[in-house]
Amino acid sequence: MNNFVFHNPTKIIFGKGTISEIGKEIKNVAIKKVLLLYGGGSIKKNGVYDTVVESLKDNGIEWVEVSGVVPNPVLSKVHEGVEIAKEENVGAILAVGGGSVIDSGKAIAAGFYYDGDIWDAYIEKYTITKALPLFVVLTLSATGSEMNGNSVITNEKTKQKFAVRGAVYPTVSIIDPSAQFSLPKAQVVYGAVDIITHVLENYFDHTKDTEIQDRISESLVRTVMNNTEKILQNPTDYEARAQFAWCGTLALNGLTAAGKSGGDWASHRIEHSLSALYGIAHGAGLAIISPAWMKYVYKEYLEKFVRFAEKIFGIIEGNDEEKVLKGIESLKEWYKKIGAPVSLKDANIPKEDIEKIVENVCMLKLPLGNIKKLYKDDIREILKIAAD
Amino acid sequence: MNNFVFHNPTKIIFGKGTISEIGKEIKNVAIKKVLLLYGGGSIKKNGVYDTVVESLKDNGIEWVEVSGVVPNPVLSKVHEGVEIAKEENVGAILAVGGGSVIDSGKAIAAGFYYDGDIWDAYIEKYTITKALPLFVVLTLSATGSEMNGNSVITNEKTKQKFAVRGAVYPTVSIIDPSAQFSLPKAQVVYGAVDIITHVLENYFDHTKDTEIQDRISESLVRTVMNNTEKILQNPTDYEARAQFAWCGTLALNGLTAAGKSGGDWASHRIEHSLSALYGIAHGAGLAIISPAWMKYVYKEYLEKFVRFAEKIFGIIEGNDEEKVLKGIESLKEWYKKIGAPVSLKDANIPKEDIEKIVENVCMLKLPLGNIKKLYKDDIREILKIAAD
Repeated sequence: MNNFVFHNPTKIIFGKGTISEIGKEIKNVAIKKVLLLYGGGSIKKNGVYDTVVESLKDNGIEWVEVSGVVPNPVLSKVHEGVEIAKEENVGAILAVGGGSVIDSGKAIAAGFYYDGDIWDAYIEKYTITKALPLFVVLTLSATGSEMNGNSVITNEKTKQKFAVRGAVYPTVSIIDPSAQFSLPKAQVVYGAVDIITHVLENYFDHTKDTEIQDRISESLVRTVMNNTEKILQNPTDYEARAQFAWCGTLALNGLTAAGKSGGDWASHRIEHSLSALYGIAHGAGLAIISPAWMKYVYKEYLEKFVRFAEKIFGIIEGNDEEKVLKGIESLKEWYKKIGAPVSLKDANIPKEDIEKIVENVCMLKLPLGNIKKLYKDDIREILKIAAD
Repeated sequence: MNNFVFHNPTKIIFGKGTISEIGKEIKNVAIKKVLLLYGGGSIKKNGVYDTVVESLKDNGIEWVEVSGVVPNPVLSKVHEGVEIAKEENVGAILAVGGGSVIDSGKAIAAGFYYDGDIWDAYIEKYTITKALPLFVVLTLSATGSEMNGNSVITNEKTKQKFAVRGAVYPTVSIIDPSAQFSLPKAQVVYGAVDIITHVLENYFDHTKDTEIQDRISESLVRTVMNNTEKILQNPTDYEARAQFAWCGTLALNGLTAAGKSGGDWASHRIEHSLSALYGIAHGAGLAIISPAWMKYVYKEYLEKFVRFAEKIFGIIEGNDEEKVLKGIESLKEWYKKIGAPVSLKDANIPKEDIEKIVENVCMLKLPLGNIKKLYKDDIREILKIAAD
């Protein structure tokens, strides 16, 4: 195990009926005005918006709204938010939504105190040192952004989808699993893929002697799988929603990464080009890329991929290589079963585009990943495996 | 799953060679003088003391010392610490040691701001609202006190061993597993029992639909067992020490309790009378009481005890009751194997004392526990099961 620092100060308020506590939490730290940030308006249909603004009113908190944050959230909306936050001199950002809204909220919170373009933080020209407090009401479990300091933003001009990590932790995140009852099925599916891939990115890490981290990771993947199936059968199964939501938070709050070497993250970084270029859901892109990446790299760390096949999919027959391939196939089969695309073809991305995708990925500093250091040719091969 | 709040702000600095960072961490929050609290002086033999004071000097931090904190730490030492902290007007407490030192540090940190006797907090006459910052250098993994707000103190006049919970979280805790290389074997053994029992206290909880919490709990118990055996074979096995230490922290930092109903804790509360009356190690007392408690209560929650037997000890044969009894026996056998006492007799506590122990336990507000509400007669029965 490596040395590490674990410091996650976010206060999580979890459970049924907790959204109405948001106003009190903001009032407790003497904030009088917030920027209320949200997405396409689903929160106005499912009652979350009403609960939030009622709670703000009850606690005498003013707010100004910025809405229209889109999946794969874009820099222009961040700029709009920063401008309004400054004009209105808000004391905090209140992000009500999923990862896109929260990630945008983090960018706005940091942009408030930065004189330049906050995109500088994403291209490593600026290190975030100060941000407004960020409050979160989570309505979609997937990115884990509600309990970490990460933010992924797409610069729609440059077609770059870049991340900052460990920068802005929410002060308080409210997670009411019942707010997710009305989510479209696809969002549950892509959320599940995203959560599982977060766990696997840290699981496939060369650090040895990480028994507890690995066992917790395996526990998270199995629990997400079990409860995704329950949710797809019965979208209002509160207990399944609660397990799913809490796993989504734990999957990327530092717990599975502690003591490891940073994980791999090549699948995520390659995927970012798919969602940047084709606007597909991040989880859809991961279901396509992650198993292909596994097939391409498993020989570099056979023992860990054997463990993956054995512990997560219970595969005990065959030699090591057979086990691994069966394990990867099992993951793909499960993704298919829940309705995720598992090839570029499934997502209507033509094979002929591979070179264009490769070029986009290669705007990142290469190599990508750790299990195998990936250069341009490697990325092309992974995309070929993912083709159909 | 129940609603819950998870908020653990402690910063953990984990790994080899990290103790020398303590001075910088204290300086970072502009504290100029600390009360350095420690136990019987083992830290002077293993080099930890020297590393700590050198780091304090390097960072220009003054200190005043209070030493002689004993296992099952006593109130009189807390009083001494509070008095000196006030006289010297320190800005923080620096606890260097195991759970006894940390728990005493928490009491002193809170006592600094309380005009009455801080024991009032332990007998629920005062709720802690303010405390000095507490810094920790951990030298013995067992209680998890390095990453929670709990403190257990023995009032040697009244023979009461009482706890406060969720009150004073360390600001920073440094965990260097190699500082534990020189621990006596017994402290490893009792640490293991303590950690495992912490997990089981929350595991045996009536809340349903806690799949991820249960899987994480099972992972912690298995990992502690595996690594305890490695440490007993090779006390300087860094990787085993690291797994053991991190599991000890995770076992009682809120993770396994989140969404449950508070766990059972009857074993702990009964045990406190053994260590209060006989001065035995807390872990020794738990190895005696916890399996006896399990035998007495398992019928109240058969399915969970079956899961315990199956998932932790891999017991798949027999009917439910047979599995459970075999599971409990396996735990006892493992405790015996590593050298813990598993009966009052093993700890030289005469059967004739049972009534005296019962009377001591019954100074607590009854009933104890949740799986089965325990009254005086129940406690007597558990002690009889534990007798030999």
